[in-house]
Amino acid sequence: MHRPNTPPAFAPKTPRFGTMPLYISAPTAVELVQRKGLKNCIAGIAEKIRSDFLRWHDFDKSARVANHSKNGVIELMPISDDAAYSFKYVNGHPNNTAIGLSTVMAFGVLADVATGAPTLVSELTLTTALRTAATSALAAQTLARANSRVMALIGNGAQSEFQALAFQHLVGIDTVRVFDLDPLATAKLVANLSGSGLQLQVCASAAQAVQGADIVTTVTADKAYATILTPDMLAPGMHINAVGGDCPGKTELAAGVLHAAQVFVEFAPQTRIEGDIQQMPGDFAVTELWEVLSGAKPGRQNEAQITVFDSVGFALEDFSALRFMHDAALACGLGERLALIPQMVDPKNLFGTLLNAEATAVPREVQAAGV
Amino acid sequence: MHRPNTPPAFAPKTPRFGTMPLYISAPTAVELVQRKGLKNCIAGIAEKIRSDFLRWHDFDKSARVANHSKNGVIELMPISDDAAYSFKYVNGHPNNTAIGLSTVMAFGVLADVATGAPTLVSELTLTTALRTAATSALAAQTLARANSRVMALIGNGAQSEFQALAFQHLVGIDTVRVFDLDPLATAKLVANLSGSGLQLQVCASAAQAVQGADIVTTVTADKAYATILTPDMLAPGMHINAVGGDCPGKTELAAGVLHAAQVFVEFAPQTRIEGDIQQMPGDFAVTELWEVLSGAKPGRQNEAQITVFDSVGFALEDFSALRFMHDAALACGLGERLALIPQMVDPKNLFGTLLNAEATAVPREVQAAGV
Repeated sequence: MHRPNTPPAFAPKTPRFGTMPLYISAPTAVELVQRKGLKNCIAGIAEKIRSDFLRWHDFDKSARVANHSKNGVIELMPISDDAAYSFKYVNGHPNNTAIGLSTVMAFGVLADVATGAPTLVSELTLTTALRTAATSALAAQTLARANSRVMALIGNGAQSEFQALAFQHLVGIDTVRVFDLDPLATAKLVANLSGSGLQLQVCASAAQAVQGADIVTTVTADKAYATILTPDMLAPGMHINAVGGDCPGKTELAAGVLHAAQVFVEFAPQTRIEGDIQQMPGDFAVTELWEVLSGAKPGRQNEAQITVFDSVGFALEDFSALRFMHDAALACGLGERLALIPQMVDPKNLFGTLLNAEATAVPREVQAAGV
Repeated sequence: MHRPNTPPAFAPKTPRFGTMPLYISAPTAVELVQRKGLKNCIAGIAEKIRSDFLRWHDFDKSARVANHSKNGVIELMPISDDAAYSFKYVNGHPNNTAIGLSTVMAFGVLADVATGAPTLVSELTLTTALRTAATSALAAQTLARANSRVMALIGNGAQSEFQALAFQHLVGIDTVRVFDLDPLATAKLVANLSGSGLQLQVCASAAQAVQGADIVTTVTADKAYATILTPDMLAPGMHINAVGGDCPGKTELAAGVLHAAQVFVEFAPQTRIEGDIQQMPGDFAVTELWEVLSGAKPGRQNEAQITVFDSVGFALEDFSALRFMHDAALACGLGERLALIPQMVDPKNLFGTLLNAEATAVPREVQAAGV
């Protein structure tokens, strides 16, 4: 099947690979991150997110489409500007880990708005962890106190190490106080971060973890109205990076925490449905992160203020991350090409593909190195 | 890259290929149709569509999500029942043929509702032509006069041959009167169907093509309020299969044609926006095809009645077609597996995939023959 040296039989006017999207598999994404370095990938994605957030009004921000079922949810998250379109497929099935599957699995697509041709099919499970951590760090750069060094990390599951390292490299955190109801999750995190240079302090409770923390990151997985963080646990100047309350029926912060803080969100219409503020009235005051990044609205106003970034994950972050991965894979010569769209000499002659397989057949995949 | 004999290092509890979707490329779909025969594929998809339409209320019928741009539109069409989820990505860019690309390109995904894991990534450009023809033929089996033998086929583009052959094999059409503004499109159709057994009559106008036709199929491509068919062209007992009026701003039938007929649709809320009935009042009477198939409502009521199937393409038809192609590919041993989702020994340890590539690496693709 794999014929790296056979050029595809493209239509004369069609750009090479015009309708053969690049394919980044999960193992290819791992290889890409290993080659470029995790820190550089998170920083690179954060920069893409920052620059895309700064042109907020360029984007057609569709609502995400969710199909709910007994066990979980499957969502599509499309977004586009004048040149590029992306969507993400992502599920959320909290019971999956009991059968050896991930709670969250994702993949995504980039396409050319001018023609509708897909240009990238990529894994987005690993990449979502990178972009979520990048977004959290970007928000904390703007909202946390400048001298923040200690972070509580509550919830030590699949996203937790990425959060810890993003805050180490992009925010300056040197100490992470970790807690999870599942001690095995914490043990896994400690093992994974043993060579990171971070000082890790294993705590016996969420309340203990937040003691002395400049930043509190909550990234728990249960689909429930939980109160991981209550008002008695707050300290002046704290920045709360609330990542796990991200769909209807799933919250992490007590209402009192939100009342005590200035709350920042990605895209208010979505966060009011999915975020921790779903428990607040529809007119509860929030500021969108892009407004702070652009200077249109203030972020943190003093050293004592409590700030909350109520993060749910927005399609634009996936758009930014997919573009980063696409460019990085091409630069590294990684990825393959998928013959997902028929290549035709005459595009009006779809039926001809069935009659004359020789004339229209193309290799199913061609090495990206040929780009 | 391709190591067919290397088994993947799956987690013990994970079913084999549990998160490695089957991949049906465009060339694989061509091979599948060639092996099974086009007639059998269209008939098989029509049967799947019929059985899925008969359990209409089992489906979570989401709205399609469209991102419109200057040149066209990109849409996502999700749907699910209790067991399976599907979505289709499809564009519509009428000017694409000028640069050697198809007007419509599509791919689709099936997923397991219980876990959210994708089970199929498939081309849907060729398959959409099959399912559109299958749906048209299914509607005509129910709505056209039983002794229909002559069909007018107006618009001889990418979908036209599939319509002709579906009506030959599933409805009993033996003569097709063809017309297109572009004589090259008609010449292509005639050449493609030369060995089909159909009698082809090339006509000089749409008005000429419909003369003596029992069934009129309109499948034109221009995004415009067109009137391919006007009331003066109608004859008693005619069945009109209106396929090309399928998005806002794109119609084929004059309002008088709709007034003169009993109109049948796939899913009324969608057709009122996208179909030929977009030009009619919101309470214009229509019957959904599933209601006729199930016997809940009458179809054609007498030999003189004019019937219109105002087809726009509904997500459920793609669901049915994807399931047909999935099962057929497995039965034929066609298709590959994509490592689109990370395979992890511990699904909470996503970060571990970066540390220990050896332990978590899997072949990027494994032959479907291994299933």
